[in-house]
Amino acid sequence: MDFFEVVSTQRAIRRLTPDPIPDEAIDRILEAAICAPSGGNRQSWSFVVIRDAELRAKIGAHYREAYFKELFNLPYYRDALAASPDSPLAKVVASSRHLAEHLAEAPVLILACLDARGMSPGITQGASIYPAVQNILLAARALGIGTTLTTIHRFRDRPIKELLGIPPEVETAALIPLGYPLGKFGRAPRRPLAEVVFFDRWGGPRPAC
Amino acid sequence: MDFFEVVSTQRAIRRLTPDPIPDEAIDRILEAAICAPSGGNRQSWSFVVIRDAELRAKIGAHYREAYFKELFNLPYYRDALAASPDSPLAKVVASSRHLAEHLAEAPVLILACLDARGMSPGITQGASIYPAVQNILLAARALGIGTTLTTIHRFRDRPIKELLGIPPEVETAALIPLGYPLGKFGRAPRRPLAEVVFFDRWGGPRPAC
Repeated sequence: MDFFEVVSTQRAIRRLTPDPIPDEAIDRILEAAICAPSGGNRQSWSFVVIRDAELRAKIGAHYREAYFKELFNLPYYRDALAASPDSPLAKVVASSRHLAEHLAEAPVLILACLDARGMSPGITQGASIYPAVQNILLAARALGIGTTLTTIHRFRDRPIKELLGIPPEVETAALIPLGYPLGKFGRAPRRPLAEVVFFDRWGGPRPAC
Repeated sequence: MDFFEVVSTQRAIRRLTPDPIPDEAIDRILEAAICAPSGGNRQSWSFVVIRDAELRAKIGAHYREAYFKELFNLPYYRDALAASPDSPLAKVVASSRHLAEHLAEAPVLILACLDARGMSPGITQGASIYPAVQNILLAARALGIGTTLTTIHRFRDRPIKELLGIPPEVETAALIPLGYPLGKFGRAPRRPLAEVVFFDRWGGPRPAC
């Protein structure tokens, strides 16, 4: 499948069928993940592939609780609840609620982890794990498998780490449900390039040709 | 170009020609960037495209100083200096030194920025910018353009922000030099999947079929 077709039609797919995903597809997705860069090529990442139904149910219960009890305490999401039901943000909320109620039904969950010890603190730690996460989302889309990047599990980080035996010092950077899509791939709504790209300085307009 | 060919041969290219990159290629790369996900689809990202030679020279001087004066104070990189010259890590250091000495010669620099105000603190802020950065690296590779994800500029974050007029509250998440490659694309050295993928629990082996 053509690269630009994949990258431009990858979008969050939160409504998934419970149909199993072949082992070969999971391997292909993870092979893509580890092609990503990491700071100093440390590769201090780990990917926990969760297929056991009982574990998925327990993680799903934590996720659901985190979603309904915690997420809407954040101003951004509280505002989203007040948005018009036709707004793009309200649609994302409706879709994310569906995921919160059905996470455990995704046949595979991947928890992307990073041992960030020794790295400079701050946002740049994410440079050593989210490129790999993005490769997972793209490779899944190339194989017709739906995903979404979630971090809501972090509201219940400790019990989830205990459940899976993840050492306390390891960060759980993203929880990615995988499944065949009920929805469709396609271009997601985005702010236009002209609003987010500057030339030569902050706010700098595109130079005339 | 096939998606899996792109993703598996994208690698850091730190030796670049000074040949200009067409505007259409930059646009295509940035269109790919904004297809990436961000937390709550906030899209609080900005991409500063730096082509002005004088600005590139000034950023290059900061980068070079940061590289030679700061980076090797970090234990990981100090150890790298002591590694055997044939080791993969020593090769990365040699290549990164070349970049530090020649950054300003890259015809285009992209500074990927994130306004993370209102986001939960910690590593997950990176989930709203590094997927877009990875799309930049992949789209460039699909177009035959070399890149690498660097964060070393952050050792000189304040003067670089002042130079470009970037507001203090905006994070500069990645500096990406772009140019046509002197080196070759190809599979980068990586730890094998068996070391970094676990099944159902931390350290869990692949289940028998």
